[in-house]
Amino acid sequence: MTDPLPFGSTIGILGGGQLGRMLSVAASRLGYRTHIFEPGANPPAGHVADQVTTAAYEDRAALEAFAASVDIITYEFENIPTQALDILEAHRPIHPNREALRVSQDRLVEKRFLQDLGLATAPFAAVDTLSDLEDAIATTGTPAILKTRRFGYDGKGQARIKSANKAESALADMAGAPAILEGFVEFSREVSVIAARGLHGDVACFDPGENVHHEGILRTTTVPAHLTASQRMGAVLLAAQILSALEYVGVMGVELFVTDGGLIVNEIAPRVHNSGHWTQNGCAVDQFEQHIRAITGLPLGDGQRHADVVMENLIGDDMDKVPTLLRSAETALHLYGKAETKPGRKMGHANHIRPKSS
Amino acid sequence: MTDPLPFGSTIGILGGGQLGRMLSVAASRLGYRTHIFEPGANPPAGHVADQVTTAAYEDRAALEAFAASVDIITYEFENIPTQALDILEAHRPIHPNREALRVSQDRLVEKRFLQDLGLATAPFAAVDTLSDLEDAIATTGTPAILKTRRFGYDGKGQARIKSANKAESALADMAGAPAILEGFVEFSREVSVIAARGLHGDVACFDPGENVHHEGILRTTTVPAHLTASQRMGAVLLAAQILSALEYVGVMGVELFVTDGGLIVNEIAPRVHNSGHWTQNGCAVDQFEQHIRAITGLPLGDGQRHADVVMENLIGDDMDKVPTLLRSAETALHLYGKAETKPGRKMGHANHIRPKSS
Repeated sequence: MTDPLPFGSTIGILGGGQLGRMLSVAASRLGYRTHIFEPGANPPAGHVADQVTTAAYEDRAALEAFAASVDIITYEFENIPTQALDILEAHRPIHPNREALRVSQDRLVEKRFLQDLGLATAPFAAVDTLSDLEDAIATTGTPAILKTRRFGYDGKGQARIKSANKAESALADMAGAPAILEGFVEFSREVSVIAARGLHGDVACFDPGENVHHEGILRTTTVPAHLTASQRMGAVLLAAQILSALEYVGVMGVELFVTDGGLIVNEIAPRVHNSGHWTQNGCAVDQFEQHIRAITGLPLGDGQRHADVVMENLIGDDMDKVPTLLRSAETALHLYGKAETKPGRKMGHANHIRPKSS
Repeated sequence: MTDPLPFGSTIGILGGGQLGRMLSVAASRLGYRTHIFEPGANPPAGHVADQVTTAAYEDRAALEAFAASVDIITYEFENIPTQALDILEAHRPIHPNREALRVSQDRLVEKRFLQDLGLATAPFAAVDTLSDLEDAIATTGTPAILKTRRFGYDGKGQARIKSANKAESALADMAGAPAILEGFVEFSREVSVIAARGLHGDVACFDPGENVHHEGILRTTTVPAHLTASQRMGAVLLAAQILSALEYVGVMGVELFVTDGGLIVNEIAPRVHNSGHWTQNGCAVDQFEQHIRAITGLPLGDGQRHADVVMENLIGDDMDKVPTLLRSAETALHLYGKAETKPGRKMGHANHIRPKSS
């Protein structure tokens, strides 16, 4: 059993968005400092970090100086260039590990990984050419969704195929990128499990949250979710199985569909996850602190929930709701300090808190 | 009604200790940045601030540059040198106001202020000379406590006088500083009210917390406190009266003794207060955010509590409890990132959370 990272150490965080920002605040609660690496100017995480490096992921000297200034490295997003990881990993441990990134950076690799674990996924097929796509549609039926294998988030890089004759235009939307066709799943609810695995193999999960998406972007997460006790247990066990298979260290978001036939894994994210933001106001240890605990070798929080929460994302013009939210007695507001409001941009979230019901 | 400070603005904070640190995090949740001014190197608040100035309060150029870089100024401690305030106030608004500082920087002025409001205090008398002290002891009786009028905190600058023949040695402990003798109060409980008043005169209070002190330092605060409904109401009204009288803007800590004869005001602190740390895990809007809301002109949170909390200070070697606290399912840990553990130094606190009882 290795000792935990000493208090006062510095955690390097790749990515300076809202997730890095909230990770940085959580690290501070445990007595750690953070150093943010982010190509974009004025990153939200920089407002609450000890140090910030503004540099490209191709800047070897900046990456090496960053690595030299920190004790361990983590990240807020999964699409970090491989070459940057190679440079960093030569100097400092990176958590979660490369295998988790390899699997989650590519939708096809991820689906096959889940399938190999015996977990249910939507029907899928790899699509590189129009003929692949035609075959794939024969497998999945329509409607289906064509997605780029890499670099998709918040519904970007996706095209719905309502009928087979729309295949060609959908493929054109992929702009030549390798793609995957996913069949539609008839589900009654979308839930997600925020799970953590520590350096010593210990696993802890938060209560599953029930998610509502709109136009490919998460809108609300509600705890407790409407799940039976066995569904709840199934969701947690399945998440634990994924983490263990990857020898994962850190927090992972596992999105699930609840269907009549059981739970289907939609996707996994090797990082803190938007659907876990409710934990900031519902748990003693939130997902951000849980991630920091996991990667530093501290004991994990057990995920116990002490309140009910509805997390509401504030996207683009939802910022107009802020004056009202500020007047709500039950609402904890979390703004991200982004300089500009844009349509589809996540600007903050509100956690609506109620005394615990069950 | 003036508009609130625009999101993205910078709040200057005088003092880089744990209170400044937690104010900075709260400001970030509302989309503000912070700039810490602190004479000491490596201030805890600097780990989670956008900017840090390390300079003395006598450094006019540094104060002016600091003021020029921020939109409004607040502070985490009341003993800011008057000259520094003069320089800063010429450039930017400072909240809470000078009157609040004037009253709370001097125990004698504070007691007289409270007395003028018709509020009960411990019996007291000004002490500059041994003959003053002898007269004062005749007024208050023994035991009594001799305190410096200024710069006292956490039990420092105080001497107990058990009997009149100890007067001379107690006065020697004051090292020539103007002092005040306070008589002992027979109380059943110590409670405090964390109250806030906004830029527009609106007032909100958190539930009174019940405090346990040991050797002059706060050890625990528990909510809900053991108070009758009328005591609770009395405490809140009394706090509101103090804030209104000072035309105060920000959060204030009001310490009270509960006696058979009613509530007695022990002292007031024109800032966020250790006995309000429980709000971080018991309320949607904690005392730090409440202070930021007050000084920026945002609507105040209403103070509603959604959980029961016992706040436990971690002082000096209490840090040895951290491994155990990290394993407690109900405990939210808040460490301050101080480089060195010293006896009597506040290193962090733990909020033990339970579902709301009443």
